[in-house]
Amino acid sequence: MRGAVLAVGDELLLGDIVNSNAAWLGEQLAAVGVQVVHSAMVGDDVERLATALRRALEDADVVVVTGGLGPTVDDLTRDAVALVAGVPQDRVPGIEEQLRGKFAAFGYDMPEAVLKQADVPRGARVLDNPVGTAPGLRLEVDGKLVFAVPGPPHEMKVVCGAVLPELAALTGTVLHTRQLHCAGTGESQVAERVEAAVTVPDGVQLAYLAGGGVVRVRFTGSDDTALLPLAEAAANALGDDVFGRDGDTLTGVVHRLLGASGATVAVAESLTGGLLGAALSAEPGSSAGFVGGVLVYATPLKAVLAGVPEAVLAEHGAVADPTARAMAEGVRERTGATYGVALTGVAGPDPQEGHPPGTLFVAVAGPEGTRVRSVRVPGDRERVRALSVTLALDLLRRTLARAS
Amino acid sequence: MRGAVLAVGDELLLGDIVNSNAAWLGEQLAAVGVQVVHSAMVGDDVERLATALRRALEDADVVVVTGGLGPTVDDLTRDAVALVAGVPQDRVPGIEEQLRGKFAAFGYDMPEAVLKQADVPRGARVLDNPVGTAPGLRLEVDGKLVFAVPGPPHEMKVVCGAVLPELAALTGTVLHTRQLHCAGTGESQVAERVEAAVTVPDGVQLAYLAGGGVVRVRFTGSDDTALLPLAEAAANALGDDVFGRDGDTLTGVVHRLLGASGATVAVAESLTGGLLGAALSAEPGSSAGFVGGVLVYATPLKAVLAGVPEAVLAEHGAVADPTARAMAEGVRERTGATYGVALTGVAGPDPQEGHPPGTLFVAVAGPEGTRVRSVRVPGDRERVRALSVTLALDLLRRTLARAS
Repeated sequence: MRGAVLAVGDELLLGDIVNSNAAWLGEQLAAVGVQVVHSAMVGDDVERLATALRRALEDADVVVVTGGLGPTVDDLTRDAVALVAGVPQDRVPGIEEQLRGKFAAFGYDMPEAVLKQADVPRGARVLDNPVGTAPGLRLEVDGKLVFAVPGPPHEMKVVCGAVLPELAALTGTVLHTRQLHCAGTGESQVAERVEAAVTVPDGVQLAYLAGGGVVRVRFTGSDDTALLPLAEAAANALGDDVFGRDGDTLTGVVHRLLGASGATVAVAESLTGGLLGAALSAEPGSSAGFVGGVLVYATPLKAVLAGVPEAVLAEHGAVADPTARAMAEGVRERTGATYGVALTGVAGPDPQEGHPPGTLFVAVAGPEGTRVRSVRVPGDRERVRALSVTLALDLLRRTLARAS
Repeated sequence: MRGAVLAVGDELLLGDIVNSNAAWLGEQLAAVGVQVVHSAMVGDDVERLATALRRALEDADVVVVTGGLGPTVDDLTRDAVALVAGVPQDRVPGIEEQLRGKFAAFGYDMPEAVLKQADVPRGARVLDNPVGTAPGLRLEVDGKLVFAVPGPPHEMKVVCGAVLPELAALTGTVLHTRQLHCAGTGESQVAERVEAAVTVPDGVQLAYLAGGGVVRVRFTGSDDTALLPLAEAAANALGDDVFGRDGDTLTGVVHRLLGASGATVAVAESLTGGLLGAALSAEPGSSAGFVGGVLVYATPLKAVLAGVPEAVLAEHGAVADPTARAMAEGVRERTGATYGVALTGVAGPDPQEGHPPGTLFVAVAGPEGTRVRSVRVPGDRERVRALSVTLALDLLRRTLARAS
């Protein structure tokens, strides 16, 4: 089954917002066996919208339109769908009542324009939207399926909850994926080791996705029982470079390992300025494992806040193995956390103390002692900082896995 | 002049990457007077690519194709352009030589497949790519302009450096924009105040763009002399809620104000876990104004690292005005920074100490004393944390502006 995605809104064409809905829909449709062959952005113009919808219907068996269902004059998806289907729109009293109810619940007066959202192209089925005012639509046009869903990502995802199972049932070939997530190694090394270990049969696709210091290995196919042994064999070949599977994240795995042993962690950050702490506190429940730490961006604070001996700073400087070690041990001691993780290095663009941008020292101090890793990280300032966080989380992850 | 954008790559349709190139091109093309009326993503298939290009040429006077210029079998943009233009491709010895030179400079052997990038549809002009191996192309097809530029964003932007001035010259109507950036207020309040103060003449567009706690007011038009007085009048109406203009960022303005008075800042973060420090250290040269600080995520660390008196914590808890005040004053004293900024609150999703998610206390301590602001921030955990950072930067910005 071939699919098309239309994202509606002038703000997309003007570049005011990025079309993240198309990426989400592409991924979700692929997972229910719909191959997206066409994905377009269209402005708020009923003729252009209708043309885009006709072209999408030429290319695909199912079209998902996102956006343009709101109450303003710019919201024209209903009109374009009705135009292409050659049907009138009827005001549906049930939706009108729901709209009035939603506004009353928030204590607002309802502008009359909102009632536009109660208009439905004849023959369309309404898709309930419990998290917003604009309902979705499902309509057959020339034997093909058109779904219109709201544009705000949160509402789109909720309304698609009714769309995706129907498509899965229609294709009968739900695609399964098995993923491995690796850190501390590169994409080509991962590929080499995986391909030496597994032979990918027909009907299974193998892909590598790299970003932010993490390499994902993805097996996709309609038969999950064929995927599992492939993922196992690849995981064995990759050993402890694999930190997780499928929905896992590196911070999630770190918190799980901390939780399993009742341990806590504190950070001492220099070049990342807080990014590591931000990552460790991003998810609900982080306080079980993450206690806090110190940001020692200016060199003197490495002594004042992290307890790095002045002699170490004088002899080795801010960017050095002994400094990272002392930062990790110092923050561990001052916070009473089970583990202290430290990052010091050169984010760039300029060198510091004679070290080129990308120079990085990561240290993890814990009950088993202190490990320091020295790496040269590629990329610009933003990338160096992001990769530094990944490398620190990964060194902590390896330390926790070894201790458990 | 109407424009179309085609972004090429299966990974876009599968949702493995988000089509940020289209947003950038949309913005850049609008600025040189090209209205993007059509923007599509296409997979790595020469027939589909050719169809997409023909449709784009139906709708637009100029088409920019991004991606599909690399050396692999999946890179088919050159073939599709030649197919649609009805011309053969010629291998260009000058490009071949350049390719061999680039590989030699890195000390790599050049795979023969790379030479594909030296093939040029007959009649096309080559656009130099100094930052990658794939050159861009410029070709006229049926009196319309087709530009093909590389897919990696960095390379695309560099190669477009040759594309945009030509388009600006062709349209003769370069669009100018004047922007105001506001923080500490909402989009509808901003709109109300701007619209009470200015009447927007024909030929000028007024737009509001809100995100991350910042509201941008944007005037767009071809006559910059008409925009300036409008922006001035709006800025007067908005008063000190305006933190910057045009290319300004909130952290950039904070650093500029710190630099102007030779002042420094340190942070004490609870619910944001490091996000404020990360923002203050994001740009090169941050070390002139940002020294570091403490992450006091766990309540006991508010005493240990930020010096909040145990009595204050016992009486008021972790989420309270006196606690935020003591955190800001404590981190200022311990680091010796001119200003201390503190954030404590409830990121959610669960309440804490009886306070609902979104409860926030921001404090700024400085030579003029300490100010605390208490706000209720909307949204989920991620949004609460992001908005908290903006509110903290804004309170610091207001304090610095008042002191200068």
